[in-house]
Amino acid sequence: MNENLPTGAPPRQLPGAQPALQGNETDGGMIALRALGSFHVGGNIRHLQGLPATRLVPVPGAPPIDIDPNGAYSVGPMYVQYAKVAVPCSPWPLLLWHGGGMTGACWETTPDGRPGWQSFFLRAGLDVYVSDAVERGRSGFARWPQFFGSEPFFMPQHAAWENYRIGPAGDFSTVPDHRRAYEGSRFPVDAFDSFTRQMVPRWQGNEPLIQDAYDALLQRMNCAIVLAHSQGAGFALQSAMRAPERVAALVLVEPGGLSGVDPAGFASCCGFPLLVVWGDRVAEVPFWAVARQAADALVAAVTAAGGDASTLDLPAAGVPGNSHLPMMDRNSDDVAQRVLDWLMLKNLCSLTRI
Amino acid sequence: MNENLPTGAPPRQLPGAQPALQGNETDGGMIALRALGSFHVGGNIRHLQGLPATRLVPVPGAPPIDIDPNGAYSVGPMYVQYAKVAVPCSPWPLLLWHGGGMTGACWETTPDGRPGWQSFFLRAGLDVYVSDAVERGRSGFARWPQFFGSEPFFMPQHAAWENYRIGPAGDFSTVPDHRRAYEGSRFPVDAFDSFTRQMVPRWQGNEPLIQDAYDALLQRMNCAIVLAHSQGAGFALQSAMRAPERVAALVLVEPGGLSGVDPAGFASCCGFPLLVVWGDRVAEVPFWAVARQAADALVAAVTAAGGDASTLDLPAAGVPGNSHLPMMDRNSDDVAQRVLDWLMLKNLCSLTRI
Repeated sequence: MNENLPTGAPPRQLPGAQPALQGNETDGGMIALRALGSFHVGGNIRHLQGLPATRLVPVPGAPPIDIDPNGAYSVGPMYVQYAKVAVPCSPWPLLLWHGGGMTGACWETTPDGRPGWQSFFLRAGLDVYVSDAVERGRSGFARWPQFFGSEPFFMPQHAAWENYRIGPAGDFSTVPDHRRAYEGSRFPVDAFDSFTRQMVPRWQGNEPLIQDAYDALLQRMNCAIVLAHSQGAGFALQSAMRAPERVAALVLVEPGGLSGVDPAGFASCCGFPLLVVWGDRVAEVPFWAVARQAADALVAAVTAAGGDASTLDLPAAGVPGNSHLPMMDRNSDDVAQRVLDWLMLKNLCSLTRI
Repeated sequence: MNENLPTGAPPRQLPGAQPALQGNETDGGMIALRALGSFHVGGNIRHLQGLPATRLVPVPGAPPIDIDPNGAYSVGPMYVQYAKVAVPCSPWPLLLWHGGGMTGACWETTPDGRPGWQSFFLRAGLDVYVSDAVERGRSGFARWPQFFGSEPFFMPQHAAWENYRIGPAGDFSTVPDHRRAYEGSRFPVDAFDSFTRQMVPRWQGNEPLIQDAYDALLQRMNCAIVLAHSQGAGFALQSAMRAPERVAALVLVEPGGLSGVDPAGFASCCGFPLLVVWGDRVAEVPFWAVARQAADALVAAVTAAGGDASTLDLPAAGVPGNSHLPMMDRNSDDVAQRVLDWLMLKNLCSLTRI
């Protein structure tokens, strides 16, 4: 607060009032945007009939509303938030596609409060589009079994601990102080409970709906750099195969969901650079060991076909300790910088602005 | 694109590639941020036991994972996204709390693609915090009946049409061209289907969980200006009554959920300015007619107790045609400007920056 406040009356001096500017919140530098907003893409209008009327008490104590649930519903749209920089370093925007059990929030701020990859790539000068896959977050979900393929599945903390490779299955405890992460883990283990706040339920059998919305997003973007994590990688590969001319580059971080992709089929249409990023302890968890094999086969097939594919194996590059969530690990900025360096190497963005 | 692109190799000239900068996307002016990110607040860790094991096929074709659903879960956290401006015009951040069936997306961009109130207030110089209430959007939802009070309720389009006062109940059609909004409606009716893409299911009986998270947010913010829409208004009033010293001002837009609030009790602790904003046709829909009476009683009680409360009745102020969703109506910026003028009148923000 300084003397530029209005002088007609002093600002209210409330107990507890404090300036909005605090501490080191400008660390990392200013982000100048020309636009911040969102849209929904994909999905369609579907209809229900034959259901009995429903009574809803929208707020306690208010009069109930009788609602006929038969009618039209929006099913399967996908929420996309964009932040467009004032002076971009690339003609192509960066799309960040999250993994299973998560939403676009995984890209925003790390569970221990550091700026996430959204901020990193904005500060580098890329327009960044963060989406929530269908079923999740601000994309919402639809009735089942009428529209969705199953009831939702809720992931307990211990499953996240194991599947996201924070630590061995047996070393999870509901008591934070008793948890033992992998030795040398770079995940901010003290913030594990905080991380699980951002987890959301998942369904089975909605893959076609999810895929359609991703395809629609790529169509709308015209051409983009796609960076996809875990389950999101499978959708990114499928979208890229359907519209390879719309992909400027593909970055797969700890990819899952590749089992359904035929390496030779993908290689035949992969005219863009492909980078696959892996953390540590991949071979120790059977699900990820299998996923790694599928990704390696993909890279080999693209290379054999004369394409441009490479793997960034972080431990092999001298960076051990990353979990399945490198965008949250303590060295998240370092991993992002390696991805950015690769984008610059491929002439997809520039140190100067266009 | 210009000559500042890297010169080592030409940028990839993909079919369909196009500059990220397009058209009039800078309309409204640049937004300079010192931080963009998010956090989850509130909720707690709860435990389940006695449930049978579950088999999850996380991606089609991948090996199934057997998951023991018994264990710890994060229940009831609230997602909050912040955009902090480089040079604020107020020491108090602005919290935007959405209404029922919606998420924070309602503040971002209007269904017909214009900048929303988030951008408006950022450009005015306020730090803006957009949250998703518990159960909704990126806050996620929890198992029922173990943690949540009911199964989710899905709102069909016709109910949104009527309850959000776009048009008379009988004048909704699933065929867009056959819909008849209220005469003179300012809602972008052509974008109604687009609007319903952002609707999400709601539950009944989760009010204590939702309230707790809002209370925790206010606690974390220290002191803030709260602008709440519809169902969010009831939560804002309850939070304000529990911690009036943390509220710099309260703006209720088309408030619902006021039935449980005792006007005299609220008036006795309302040491901050209160503004209530109403659109058109309120008396024509019984649910909103009742809500209006509750809000009028509140304003009267605060005024009688010597407090600072006022109502902005848009039709009475010469602005007819607003729906229940003034942040999306075609005059959304005009309504936001009236709120901003009121904040300046109350010396809560300044034309110059602090």
